[in-house]
Amino acid sequence: MADRATVVIIGGGFGGLWAAKALANKPVDVMLIDRKNHHVFQPLLYQVATAVLSPGEVASPIRRILHNAKNIEVILGEADAFELEKNTVLLEDGSAVPFDYLIIAAGARHAYFGNDEWETWAPGLKTLEDAVEIRRRIFLAFELAERKAALTGSHDPLNFVVVGGGPTGVELAGAIADIARQALKNDFKVIDTTKARVMLFEGSDRVLGTYDRDLSQSAKDQLEDLGVEVNLNSFVTEIEPGRVRAGDKWIECEVVLWATGVAASPLGARLGVETDNAGRVRVAPDLSIPGHPNVFVIGDMAYLLQEHGEPIPGVSPAAMQMGTAAARSILADLKGKPRKKFAYIDRGSMATIGRSKAIAQVFGMKFRGLIAWFLWLFLHVMFLIGFRNRLFVLMGWFWAYLTRERSARLITGDAEELRNAVVFMEGEGSGTFVGDASAVPRSKERSG
Amino acid sequence: MADRATVVIIGGGFGGLWAAKALANKPVDVMLIDRKNHHVFQPLLYQVATAVLSPGEVASPIRRILHNAKNIEVILGEADAFELEKNTVLLEDGSAVPFDYLIIAAGARHAYFGNDEWETWAPGLKTLEDAVEIRRRIFLAFELAERKAALTGSHDPLNFVVVGGGPTGVELAGAIADIARQALKNDFKVIDTTKARVMLFEGSDRVLGTYDRDLSQSAKDQLEDLGVEVNLNSFVTEIEPGRVRAGDKWIECEVVLWATGVAASPLGARLGVETDNAGRVRVAPDLSIPGHPNVFVIGDMAYLLQEHGEPIPGVSPAAMQMGTAAARSILADLKGKPRKKFAYIDRGSMATIGRSKAIAQVFGMKFRGLIAWFLWLFLHVMFLIGFRNRLFVLMGWFWAYLTRERSARLITGDAEELRNAVVFMEGEGSGTFVGDASAVPRSKERSG
Repeated sequence: MADRATVVIIGGGFGGLWAAKALANKPVDVMLIDRKNHHVFQPLLYQVATAVLSPGEVASPIRRILHNAKNIEVILGEADAFELEKNTVLLEDGSAVPFDYLIIAAGARHAYFGNDEWETWAPGLKTLEDAVEIRRRIFLAFELAERKAALTGSHDPLNFVVVGGGPTGVELAGAIADIARQALKNDFKVIDTTKARVMLFEGSDRVLGTYDRDLSQSAKDQLEDLGVEVNLNSFVTEIEPGRVRAGDKWIECEVVLWATGVAASPLGARLGVETDNAGRVRVAPDLSIPGHPNVFVIGDMAYLLQEHGEPIPGVSPAAMQMGTAAARSILADLKGKPRKKFAYIDRGSMATIGRSKAIAQVFGMKFRGLIAWFLWLFLHVMFLIGFRNRLFVLMGWFWAYLTRERSARLITGDAEELRNAVVFMEGEGSGTFVGDASAVPRSKERSG
Repeated sequence: MADRATVVIIGGGFGGLWAAKALANKPVDVMLIDRKNHHVFQPLLYQVATAVLSPGEVASPIRRILHNAKNIEVILGEADAFELEKNTVLLEDGSAVPFDYLIIAAGARHAYFGNDEWETWAPGLKTLEDAVEIRRRIFLAFELAERKAALTGSHDPLNFVVVGGGPTGVELAGAIADIARQALKNDFKVIDTTKARVMLFEGSDRVLGTYDRDLSQSAKDQLEDLGVEVNLNSFVTEIEPGRVRAGDKWIECEVVLWATGVAASPLGARLGVETDNAGRVRVAPDLSIPGHPNVFVIGDMAYLLQEHGEPIPGVSPAAMQMGTAAARSILADLKGKPRKKFAYIDRGSMATIGRSKAIAQVFGMKFRGLIAWFLWLFLHVMFLIGFRNRLFVLMGWFWAYLTRERSARLITGDAEELRNAVVFMEGEGSGTFVGDASAVPRSKERSG
């Protein structure tokens, strides 16, 4: 490493991975550190949560993606603190990792607006573990209703609540409606799954608020076609086991999913520089932080205004572009060339709503319904990076499209979970759905 | 249900599922109860544990498999006790399920010969959760070695121990050797994964002891070709975190997998009838239990001698045949016809060892190597029941065969797990690998 610069990248999401790709086989030594061994293709995570795809189909080992880059080491680890004066990152076990350049791309999670305890009852969708947990809750709700109806002759209403009308909320609500009305209807002999209610709550006056108003309206119409009850101007203000409060009404529900609010990784706050109220770091036009031109913050963790005055949005194309830009700035430094200002190029966006339903705003044009959905499908499949095989994913989707089948609907977890779930459904307990991977206690506590 | 007999089936494995299939759309009302919502295609579970297939590719929702049977309800639940005089099964929450006929097919797990605490350190492979946990341990071991080597310049020897030389032990050992020598070798930049050692310990004088001696020898040769160290006449007598004892030697190892011993479901013991020392229920020639001709015990839970004096083996074809036979006895009863004695038809067997390596003993002929492997592949793919799609699985395998890729190698679990894993690898703790799904505590404890 003697006379080559060392670049440390924290995070193997879109930002970190694109930075690494731009540095592949360049005259630098790169170490990419991630808490997981896999990159997750976030835009398809909801397909895992709703049983169309398996976890392995939307995730790929980071070191596999980068295995042709001879100058990049990939390390499983969690950045915990910084000693910027010493150009050092500290990992969770205290290991010190020195760097010449540092690119921080640790992403964001959902924010619960100060009610972190809600996460237990209303998980968000950011990781593979989240997706598997959400899948478990959705399908377990149907199973428990069927069981209760078979054993006692009746069951509680099957209500699903999705909080937040952004892309994830819309995708989840549309998919659950499709599950209830199509995928499961012939598999349950006792209950009528098509009577399940899916309620979407959105605080503003429209869903998918980053699109033009007419597309938002189209998205709402398409959701309602699928059977979703769309509640606008409606904030969820309390969440308890088995129910949520929206306005002055309590709504009983088996499953609550959280798809609103953004909190940047807490790593940003540990840099000792200015952050906004979502924890994002205010970066310079070259994406570096004040006083440390060798430290970049990119992706969902970065806050930077565009020329027209709006901040760069927290979307994957922006993260990728920032990753590439930070890498190029480093390479420019090493060649003694000036850095370029970062400018986000918005190539448009699209949101899927359900089977053959979507909206898209690309190349200055607007699309809705089947055409938008094919556009979305095409771009997402083409974009899958180094995954199992683009062809298989495409075929799997085509199959699911034709058959309306959701073949990955596995409820995993142990018998204790079931036992508690049953107790909960029968109103004798309150501890059912505490199954998020993050709730797995430290092994020391477990063994101690 | 008034004048139709009610048949309750406990367990949706091969035995229970084949019983249900034989009763589909017959003049009986059937309730199938399973702790999971999915049937697992056990013979391919090791492919999940070794990252060739995803969980969704070897499992299918039970109610999906049976959705065309109008007379079958599928219920998520765990049988807990029996009141045979009242013809009632009690579920885990005390729910009473009445029956006219009962088929118990709850299977078996691995036995630790009185050392149940070993399960924490040496998981067996019976469920999807087991498979995902074993996958996590295998790939985490490589990740932690890479990390340690990158950060400190050296790492501990990468040793894998597999206990038991039956089909599962042979499959796992062969697959891990292939992972180390082929799948990962180009993805790790710091460590040399091909130096990992895979040690198989078998107490008897040969692996795959149910086959003819020359095939056992061939299997051993094929394993050694793959780089597995096969230790025969070698019992593992102690297991501790990070090491096992075989004979008078302690062997340091990152991962220990348990593939020996059989313990039938504890449900058998709760019937109040005679069981053997593995907990299997001694059944009559019609598979019913003494004193209760309407109660059948089948599959891995049943103990019945064949005409030549050997017990029926605990293999999936036997479970399927018993399921069908129990169902036919019930239908015979209802028609006033006599029951038939159960006779197991052994159509041969095959065991896979690794990529293009296997042995087979079918139709009175013996095969080994590539031909046996193709036979194995062909039969297993053809046999996959109602899964995502036989074609996709076949293509996925073909792809894996061509590329030697193992694309499903996801390490899932949360950051705390990683933290503990790191601490463990560095010798500061003993609580690392406590990640089996069954270790997830009751949610009440968690929330309380």
